[in-house]
Amino acid sequence: MNIAIVGAGGAVGREILSILEGGALPFDNLRLFGSARSAGSKMPFRGQEIEIEQLTHDSDFSGVDFALVSAGGSTSIEYADVITRHGTVMIDNSSAFRMDADVPLVVPEINGEDALKAPRNIIANPNCTTIQMVVALSPINRISPVKRVHVATYQAASGAGALAMDELIQQHADLVAGREPHVEKFAYQLAYNVIPHIDVFTDNDYTKEEMKMYHETKKIMHSSSIEVSATCVRVPVMRAHSEAIWVETERPVSVEEAREAFMKAPGVVLMDDPAAKAYPMPLDIAGKDPVYVGRVRRDLAGSGLAFWTVSDQLRKGAALNAVQIVQCIIKKRHSA
Amino acid sequence: MNIAIVGAGGAVGREILSILEGGALPFDNLRLFGSARSAGSKMPFRGQEIEIEQLTHDSDFSGVDFALVSAGGSTSIEYADVITRHGTVMIDNSSAFRMDADVPLVVPEINGEDALKAPRNIIANPNCTTIQMVVALSPINRISPVKRVHVATYQAASGAGALAMDELIQQHADLVAGREPHVEKFAYQLAYNVIPHIDVFTDNDYTKEEMKMYHETKKIMHSSSIEVSATCVRVPVMRAHSEAIWVETERPVSVEEAREAFMKAPGVVLMDDPAAKAYPMPLDIAGKDPVYVGRVRRDLAGSGLAFWTVSDQLRKGAALNAVQIVQCIIKKRHSA
Repeated sequence: MNIAIVGAGGAVGREILSILEGGALPFDNLRLFGSARSAGSKMPFRGQEIEIEQLTHDSDFSGVDFALVSAGGSTSIEYADVITRHGTVMIDNSSAFRMDADVPLVVPEINGEDALKAPRNIIANPNCTTIQMVVALSPINRISPVKRVHVATYQAASGAGALAMDELIQQHADLVAGREPHVEKFAYQLAYNVIPHIDVFTDNDYTKEEMKMYHETKKIMHSSSIEVSATCVRVPVMRAHSEAIWVETERPVSVEEAREAFMKAPGVVLMDDPAAKAYPMPLDIAGKDPVYVGRVRRDLAGSGLAFWTVSDQLRKGAALNAVQIVQCIIKKRHSA
Repeated sequence: MNIAIVGAGGAVGREILSILEGGALPFDNLRLFGSARSAGSKMPFRGQEIEIEQLTHDSDFSGVDFALVSAGGSTSIEYADVITRHGTVMIDNSSAFRMDADVPLVVPEINGEDALKAPRNIIANPNCTTIQMVVALSPINRISPVKRVHVATYQAASGAGALAMDELIQQHADLVAGREPHVEKFAYQLAYNVIPHIDVFTDNDYTKEEMKMYHETKKIMHSSSIEVSATCVRVPVMRAHSEAIWVETERPVSVEEAREAFMKAPGVVLMDDPAAKAYPMPLDIAGKDPVYVGRVRRDLAGSGLAFWTVSDQLRKGAALNAVQIVQCIIKKRHSA
């Protein structure tokens, strides 16, 4: 089995490399691809170094079983044919193909079986904010179908890439030194601020990031009747996203039922002990795999539930979910 | 007219002093009170200095018309009688008396008339998160009664006091210098983190801060049928609080109606032009008086509206509202 990482020098690419280093997938050969800028640089891997190859229209992916692609939407669109033409399955982390009818959008805990129906050899990885939300909604949905979701996000700098993370640190260093902070990767200064604007605005005045949560949730959960209203906000945090969620189901689900469902759900860790000040926070959850759930309680303004989730945007929100899609396909192929 | 500020050395006390310096209230004499720790220190005011007197059970408030009190709930309870016994009207910024039936809870734009019925000479200033929310909800409520509110907050360090603001700055300075950040005023490190826990937990697993938004909204808006479910979160921001709000009214209110109502509403500034990246953010709104509203759009998971508000917690969220209560009483007495 041969694997390629496209966008190996980026924040998500590096995270995939780290997950593979931990032994998440068996493989014979690992190839790394990147832009002209990163090509030629070497990434450490298991005591050796792997050189990043430049991705071009002549790049040869024959023999590569899976390509994990995290290089932005325009690169995914431009090189999808180059990557998949010899049968390579492309796990794409961008939003480019997510809503295409012939591209499955997969969170293995929820709709892993969809990964086997990929006529274009492209499988899309959902947006980070959607992944952690649906992993938490899914156990509730199994008790009674989810009807309405309201969600406010607290999104880390990592969602905007490695350079954005550097920029947030630099902004704080500038402020401590009494210098004007440099702003480039975000719309405005993020240090000591929150910005209610991620990705571009759409016609209904929601941002594209907010509408991803609306559309992707329906597709992953196979339900056109789940309605999601999101407010997505960037906060001065490094890696993990937090979400305040209210969910309404067809029949009311009690707090006790929900807690039990969260405890049993794959990929979910319930961290909910107010008396012990135990609830998930991004600083603690950075670098961890599961979706953490806490603050579970009755929705005082409806018949549903309120809860809080935190998950590392670079792990389950991106790199880990992509690797898990590959694991899922391998397992299902073996058991087929 | 004579005025006293109790807790003059604290974050809110200093802000009241700055508002009075700007000429917000006419007065002949201004007295400052504080704890044993701050007593004797001098506060600059209009080119002079006013010494902070120690608040004791022998403090004499006779002749003081209004005392603006921001020294914490236990001080308010202990000294309420000392302050009010000679007819002084106490505007209390703590949560101690807010839900007492014989203590009005006042946001002048909404229920200013309640300030005239204060049999105990105590008027309570609502919690910061409630004030900015009800100022924004009130114009919607005038179109059609508000039924349900879901709100996620992004609360600044200032809500925890002046020392907490210092601690956040120090945490960032420590991190830039490679030192372990010092944690004292917050439950956990706030720098590069968000904490879904403000004030203590109550029996229903909501925090007291969240339940303040539930109870205080009903009292201020004179409606027992408004239901509020809040998730209150501390974020690494200095002064202004942000809130993501979803509101459902008896009959649906359109985005256009809501925008027009926000534009006309007293104390509200509509800052909502997505194409120009115009929406309120705490970094811009710090030090300003109004409640800013932006991101107004249809609730995609209900029949209501979604919007975003930002307001300076120390201004409209505390000091300014207290001063406006005094202004309101003076005006209503004159016109009576």
